[in-house]
This record gives sequence, C-alpha cells and structure tokens, in this order.
Amino acid sequence: MTKTTYKEINKFMLSQMLDSAHDKYHVYRVLNYALDIASHECVDDMGVLIAACLLHDIGREQQFANPELCHAQVGGEMAHEFLLSIGWESSRAQHVKECITSHRYRGNNTPQSIEAEILSDADNLEACGAIGIARTLIYEGQTGEPLYMLGENDGIIEDSRQTKENSFFQEYNFKLKNVYDKFYTEHGKKLALERQETATNFYNGLFAEINMNNINGMKKHAIILHE
Amino acid sequence: MTKTTYKEINKFMLSQMLDSAHDKYHVYRVLNYALDIASHECVDDMGVLIAACLLHDIGREQQFANPELCHAQVGGEMAHEFLLSIGWESSRAQHVKECITSHRYRGNNTPQSIEAEILSDADNLEACGAIGIARTLIYEGQTGEPLYMLGENDGIIEDSRQTKENSFFQEYNFKLKNVYDKFYTEHGKKLALERQETATNFYNGLFAEINMNNINGMKKHAIILHE
Repeated sequence: MTKTTYKEINKFMLSQMLDSAHDKYHVYRVLNYALDIASHECVDDMGVLIAACLLHDIGREQQFANPELCHAQVGGEMAHEFLLSIGWESSRAQHVKECITSHRYRGNNTPQSIEAEILSDADNLEACGAIGIARTLIYEGQTGEPLYMLGENDGIIEDSRQTKENSFFQEYNFKLKNVYDKFYTEHGKKLALERQETATNFYNGLFAEINMNNINGMKKHAIILHE
Repeated sequence: MTKTTYKEINKFMLSQMLDSAHDKYHVYRVLNYALDIASHECVDDMGVLIAACLLHDIGREQQFANPELCHAQVGGEMAHEFLLSIGWESSRAQHVKECITSHRYRGNNTPQSIEAEILSDADNLEACGAIGIARTLIYEGQTGEPLYMLGENDGIIEDSRQTKENSFFQEYNFKLKNVYDKFYTEHGKKLALERQETATNFYNGLFAEINMNNINGMKKHAIILHE
C-alpha cells in the first residue's frame, strides 16, 4: 500500500474512533498483529488487509448510540462507501467490507478469505492475555457495569454459571476464557496461547481475592453486629 | 454495633455511592478487610471503625463534580454531620471524621488512631493485587483515560518514567506498584504482600504484550508501506 493511501484511510479512521476500549491504539495493535500473522501466510491482497484492519471498528459509535445495530455490519457498509469515494475498485472495496462484516466474535458470519481470517484472528488476540482483560475492564467502566454480582439470597459471588447479568465475571466466562478456541491461522493461535496463562492467573487471582474477602466478611459480620 | 445502626448508616452510604470503581461492593470489601485486620489488633471502638469504613467514600461524587475538592475531606465532613443527625456523641462522630479525612493515598493527613490506620490499610488493600488492577482499569474507562501513550517522536510506549500524562501505565507506576510500602498494621501488610505477585505479573505481561506488538508493528510498517 502507498503511504498516501495509508494516511488517507488512517485519517478517516481517526475521525470515527472515540472510545478508549476501541481507540486508535486498539486499531494499530490489530494492524500490527495482522501484519505479523500475514508474514506466515500467503495473502493475496495486503492492501485489502491493511484497509480492513484500519477500518474494522468504525461502526462502534453507531452501535453505542443504538445497541441493536451491529458495528461489524455498519462498519462494513461505511468502509465500502468510503473506499469507493477515494477511488478504490468495487471488488476490493467489497472484499474489505466482507472482512469487516465477518470479524465480530459474537457475529454469525464466518470469514471467507485469508484476509478476513487474519483480521478475525488479529482482533481476537485483543481479547486474549493481559490486553484482553485490560480492555474488557475499561469497557466495564465505560458502560457502568460492575465487576461481579452477589447472589441476593446467599450473598455468594455470582459468575456466568449463575447469572446472565452483565459484569466482568460474566464476560470473562462467556468470551475471554473461550476466545482461544476461535483462531483460523496457526500463527494467530500460537500468539493467543502464549498469552493465555497471564489472563487465567489474573482471573483466578481476582476471584480468589474477592471470594475470600466476601466469605471472611460474612463470618465477621455475624459476630460483630448484634440486636 | 447494633444491626439497626448498621442499617441506618448503610442506607445513607448507598444513597451517596454512584460509580462502579468506588461502588457499594468496594465499600463492603473495605469493611471486610478492616474487620479481618481488627481481629489482629486492639481496637478501642469497633463502632467507629465500622462507620468509618461504610462512609469513607461518600465524598466521591463531589470530587467527581469538582476535581479540586478532596473526597476524604468532603466525606469526613458529610459523615460527621450525618452521624450527629442520628444521635451519635460528638467525640465519636469526630473520630469517624478523622479516620475518613486521613484515609486517602494521595492525602497528607496521617492516621492518628488504630481505627484510622485500619481504614487506611483496608482501603489500600483495594489498590493491591488483582483487585487493584481491576478497579484502576474500570476507573480509566469511566474517565476516558487511555491504557498508555506512545511517544510522539519515537513511537515507543511511555510509562511514568517518560510522562506525566494520565494513563493506566502512569497510574500503575505512580500508585499501584508502590502501595505495598504504605501499610500500618502487620496483618494488612501481610495480606498486601500475598497479592503483590498477581499484580506484578499482570502488569509485566501487559507491558510485554503491547511493547512486542508495537515494536514488531513498526518494523512491518516500514516494509509494507511504500512511496
């Protein structure tokens, strides 16, 4: 890709990215992971891959404003329109759109090209390891979701086994713990597995700290409070 | 403390706590830690300690609205006024106020009683280990601060050694890394040190993931982009 085209797409991306869990640094990390994975694969069109990485989350703002929208669908449409407007061939703009449309972890569209598989893997690496934990916690702060819930009846900490309420513990057990099984490329999978232990140790440590504090607290309360 | 008094103070606390990094679960964990530490110390007035724990962060909202205010000062005043209004003796309400006023990590007031020391230790435990990491990241999300900054000239990740800009990396190096040295009680210090390795491993893992991604990315960009 020429530096001029890169700058043009980058400028458009920056104008669309406003939140700190999916900010420009997330976009650049996804691009960096994608370039690393691509060097282990036969990629037909590096320009399509770079554009798809830069533009993959530009639909986030619309999804924030209306949670019924899917940022992958919206972002794919926006990218297609933008690339046509700067003179890209229809088939390549369509290819970028297909990559973006199929990148979402929660989505039902399966990647249909090596470029789409690499984008999906690069974005899923951002849900692995310490960075996956960090970004999810930042997102919880943005949306006002709690770390965890306590059971109304027994006061015990709930995680995904007991609740569907949104919390960090629920999201960890729904997505972060399982994302390691959803890689298409060998190198992407290798990078993911290298990061798994940091995330597992952190979650287990967090759960142990909070659970011990909670159980000890319930015992002490019973002693210290009286009628 | 009687259950009725506990419920009365708890109800007032709940009416004041609105953000998810300093929510009611944070307050209950601080109380639980304090009760645990207290069982290893000679505490003169358990009622003062319990009230101080429950009310220690009620000044947060005013500090959010006006960052020049200190939540420890404001919260101490609010707690004093509230406790007098429900019939507490002036000297005990004043003691609670002193505990709250001196609990802040960034504050200049040193705890002057065992109850104040225990509140300070219990609150600092919330900056240790995995929970310290998790709460700080949630706070970054709430305030829109980034994980880290990249140097404008060299593109290398900045941490506290290079920058005073607010970010998670800056906060880790300013506070989370150093909080283990600021404990007054032996049992508080012991609980803190038990949690230190989880936090250190997480930060080091996060830094390594991001730094490697960034350095690899810069090399690939130089190869792939052309004039």
